[in-house]
Amino acid sequence: MKKIIDPWGSGLVEDYEKIVKDFGLEAFNLKLFPEPNRIMRRGVVFAGRDIGIISDAIRKKKKFYVLSGIMPTNEKIHFGTKMVVENIKYFQEHGAETYILVADLEAASTRGVSLEKARKMALDFHIPAYVALGLDIRKTNFYFQSENKEVMNNVYEFAKKITLNEFEAIYGNADPGRIMGAITQVADILYPQFKERMPGIIPVGVDQDPHIRLTRDIVRRMKEKNFFLPSSIYHKYTPSLDGSLKMSKSKPESCIELPEDINSVKKKINRALSGGRDTLEEHRKLGAVIEKDMVFELMKQHLVEDDKELDKIYKAYKSGKMTSGELKEIANKNMEKFMDDFNNGIERARKHLGSLKFVKFK
Amino acid sequence: MKKIIDPWGSGLVEDYEKIVKDFGLEAFNLKLFPEPNRIMRRGVVFAGRDIGIISDAIRKKKKFYVLSGIMPTNEKIHFGTKMVVENIKYFQEHGAETYILVADLEAASTRGVSLEKARKMALDFHIPAYVALGLDIRKTNFYFQSENKEVMNNVYEFAKKITLNEFEAIYGNADPGRIMGAITQVADILYPQFKERMPGIIPVGVDQDPHIRLTRDIVRRMKEKNFFLPSSIYHKYTPSLDGSLKMSKSKPESCIELPEDINSVKKKINRALSGGRDTLEEHRKLGAVIEKDMVFELMKQHLVEDDKELDKIYKAYKSGKMTSGELKEIANKNMEKFMDDFNNGIERARKHLGSLKFVKFK
Repeated sequence: MKKIIDPWGSGLVEDYEKIVKDFGLEAFNLKLFPEPNRIMRRGVVFAGRDIGIISDAIRKKKKFYVLSGIMPTNEKIHFGTKMVVENIKYFQEHGAETYILVADLEAASTRGVSLEKARKMALDFHIPAYVALGLDIRKTNFYFQSENKEVMNNVYEFAKKITLNEFEAIYGNADPGRIMGAITQVADILYPQFKERMPGIIPVGVDQDPHIRLTRDIVRRMKEKNFFLPSSIYHKYTPSLDGSLKMSKSKPESCIELPEDINSVKKKINRALSGGRDTLEEHRKLGAVIEKDMVFELMKQHLVEDDKELDKIYKAYKSGKMTSGELKEIANKNMEKFMDDFNNGIERARKHLGSLKFVKFK
Repeated sequence: MKKIIDPWGSGLVEDYEKIVKDFGLEAFNLKLFPEPNRIMRRGVVFAGRDIGIISDAIRKKKKFYVLSGIMPTNEKIHFGTKMVVENIKYFQEHGAETYILVADLEAASTRGVSLEKARKMALDFHIPAYVALGLDIRKTNFYFQSENKEVMNNVYEFAKKITLNEFEAIYGNADPGRIMGAITQVADILYPQFKERMPGIIPVGVDQDPHIRLTRDIVRRMKEKNFFLPSSIYHKYTPSLDGSLKMSKSKPESCIELPEDINSVKKKINRALSGGRDTLEEHRKLGAVIEKDMVFELMKQHLVEDDKELDKIYKAYKSGKMTSGELKEIANKNMEKFMDDFNNGIERARKHLGSLKFVKFK
């Protein structure tokens, strides 16, 4: 039985079925969340851990938090980050205390970006980009890892709760730098609970699940601390335009960055793996192989907000009434609007950085 | 060829010869240091790493530092700590910038002592005890690990420079808690060089050498940072009163703590492994087996400051003129004076905590 609901299914569903099974995730249950956002409604958010407790907190207006991190290595984000922000926005609008940490220590240790440069990039680009994508700057608590002594001071205690073998089982390898980075993430994830225990949700791509598992393992071993096990939700990757599972900068022709020059983006979309048939005649007769079409997938995930509009496109394309060229035209138009809005949003947000709320440390 | 000079030799010398060889240490060269202290003169300080550069700094009045840590787990220290403080005092008096860190994070993570309790113990007992043993409070820079963001922020970068296998080769095991603790020690050891590169000396017991090796390995891999390789000197253990290599709380009858009730201490000394002969007649004829005598070793290491006085006792005891009982009597008398001075010194130092200089952090 397929557990993942993808109303406008893509060919990659089976990969995600396997992930849910292998990682022991819960399939995402749309009914648990009022006014679900676009990526929830469309099965892009496909799984989670302990999502019931967050649903309950939303419905009963109990305290809970949503937390995510910014890793400032260059002035670009990708569609995965966009989905994280959309989910943060969802929980923020549904009552969550919101925490965004800037992982400047991790950027320094794993990418060689100095703390100063990481800070500057976060303020100049990443935070404005998050605001452009819908984060409410006035309702968000920011901190820099390098300034959060409470996180650092707890890292030691958390580190003791896990053996090397267990760490290797979760991460595959266990170099000292990776261990320190991972356990710092555990402390970040639990940080909002240091003052007051409450449920929390961490929206991530599924490649970040090891941190969630590690945190949950450690919390289970500190029963006396009464931390809530952090909940998580997972979104699918935005697939590479060539049809593989995940957009990656290693294949620049199949990867769109945010922001990116719109002409460059349009070229990539025009060359993307299409579900259109070889001839127009065949296309009209058989319709598009929609689950293979990366442009439709991109529209579903990111470029068409309204479900009815998406459904109309889906039916027209699937039936062969709409050609692959026409689909790409709509995609390009919507992408241009998105990229304009995004760039303008960043400009606008930069003017409001004075409203940034940083966590105060002693 | 024996490299370790122990002018009033003990039976444990061969163990230390082996340590020097196995660890690749330099034998301690007394001639390199002006006005050597008691434990240097007596071969108790037996080895080091890169001690030439420190000798050079002393003679040429160049900048260098001495650094050590306090791990506040209970209100006791042992003779090993006493020797560390005596060596700190030596380098402090010979021009070293002095840094003492309170390893409150490590106490918390490895011994479950809360940061607050660790801080209180350090201020109530350990720092006064160090002052009682000769540390100049006005010339010493103190900090608490949990407050030193600069150390924390560098831990990540240092962690990247070592692989898990290398870590295991140095420490024997590599649990995450141990890795974090060890790499924090690396950052502590280098901390005085963050602002200005200079040689530094870390006086330790030989069981602490893994931290020195790890630090030196990491520094060698960061050539572009131009850190000086930290130097170290090693003192022998104060042997257990039953004749084994090291006093240990696991054998309380053979272990003296500082402070400890003097009557309890005297009982232990009276029962200690002796080099005296079975009968008085035999003793007068053959003299004491001095290298087996733990009371003489204790006097040599800790209870007789003046070399001539020690030499007189040595000759009298070795020749059989002095009995084991007479030796113990002197030891007990000197121990009582030491313990009184130590306790009074702590009391006095507590009144001067206002002069403590804490490193200022931004």
